[in-house]
Amino acid sequence: MNRTSGAILVLSGPSGAGKSSLINQIKDHIGPIYFSISTTTRPIREGEVDGVHYHFVDIAEFKQDIEQEMFLEYAVVHGNYYGTSLGPVKKALKEGKLVIFDIDVQGHDAVQNRLSDITTSVFITTPSLEELKRRLHNRSTDSEEVISGRIEMAKREVQRISEYDFLVVNDNLDEAAEILVSIAKAARMKIPTLQINEFVQTWEIS
Amino acid sequence: MNRTSGAILVLSGPSGAGKSSLINQIKDHIGPIYFSISTTTRPIREGEVDGVHYHFVDIAEFKQDIEQEMFLEYAVVHGNYYGTSLGPVKKALKEGKLVIFDIDVQGHDAVQNRLSDITTSVFITTPSLEELKRRLHNRSTDSEEVISGRIEMAKREVQRISEYDFLVVNDNLDEAAEILVSIAKAARMKIPTLQINEFVQTWEIS
Repeated sequence: MNRTSGAILVLSGPSGAGKSSLINQIKDHIGPIYFSISTTTRPIREGEVDGVHYHFVDIAEFKQDIEQEMFLEYAVVHGNYYGTSLGPVKKALKEGKLVIFDIDVQGHDAVQNRLSDITTSVFITTPSLEELKRRLHNRSTDSEEVISGRIEMAKREVQRISEYDFLVVNDNLDEAAEILVSIAKAARMKIPTLQINEFVQTWEIS
Repeated sequence: MNRTSGAILVLSGPSGAGKSSLINQIKDHIGPIYFSISTTTRPIREGEVDGVHYHFVDIAEFKQDIEQEMFLEYAVVHGNYYGTSLGPVKKALKEGKLVIFDIDVQGHDAVQNRLSDITTSVFITTPSLEELKRRLHNRSTDSEEVISGRIEMAKREVQRISEYDFLVVNDNLDEAAEILVSIAKAARMKIPTLQINEFVQTWEIS
């Protein structure tokens, strides 16, 4: 049985729950990974790197990819297209990598619809709404309006925790990171249905 | 949120796949656990210890427990009753332990029916049927008849791998143990639906 096929790890949770810090802390301890980045038609900004922050493409290319069903999901925000391209994901899976998605509950839906057999999903949150508010105010990068938006979004997203395989309450960063490392390693043991079927067949004919 | 609630890890797989060796190798590296043992009315044999090998009870007690729905599952084999009692499992869960079941696919069914929200399941197998046959013959503890029975059982059980969360192919014991440690640690992050609901409610009212 070919055990080199990749798998998918979906991480969701409110902005401010510490997803980015957690990903940074675990990324060198969980084997070969591919961090999925979005494709967009939005103009590249100063300091951004194509293929690092986003895959930057023009509208014609994006629309062609839509027609060819090359997106797991896409949306139009302020006239710009944003989407998750299947191409790089499939390539990384073939290379046996763990593909990590930092996406919201809608994105999680899209991944589960297409790739549920190899997907493990984790909802990451603060211990309480109060703690989330405190962290969002403390990092002071966002305006009050943006913070309010994030909090309303968080309240809605938390309602859907039960759709996820695991819940990680990020109370202590080191502890949460250790748990997430375990989940990421376990996630690689999700084998595609197709491969399971092939494996099972070799047991039938013997 | 109370994060001390326990969770369940179900391990299934053919006799000869190395489950016992794996459990021995990981048991001191995955935090507090309770290894579920069966309850039986079969007479105790020399060398067996009540509460270690089995919970030994008389038929009257067993039948009372059946009536009071105290079994996850039970069966009668050669006139003796065998069952998985819920009592010790619930106690261990309250103590925040990871309850480990070494059970077959029927037992897995029973656990999923009653306790799916806190259960993670792993199917453990050899890389191939040939390798299973080789191991069963090499350990030379079983008669040819018993080995044949185990192989037929393995062929049937392998058909149901897809009902499990994870597949661990025990090719190399150390590697398989490392993977199983990760899965066991991750398994603790399965939170009961009831607790999820309570958690979500605290986010609604804030």
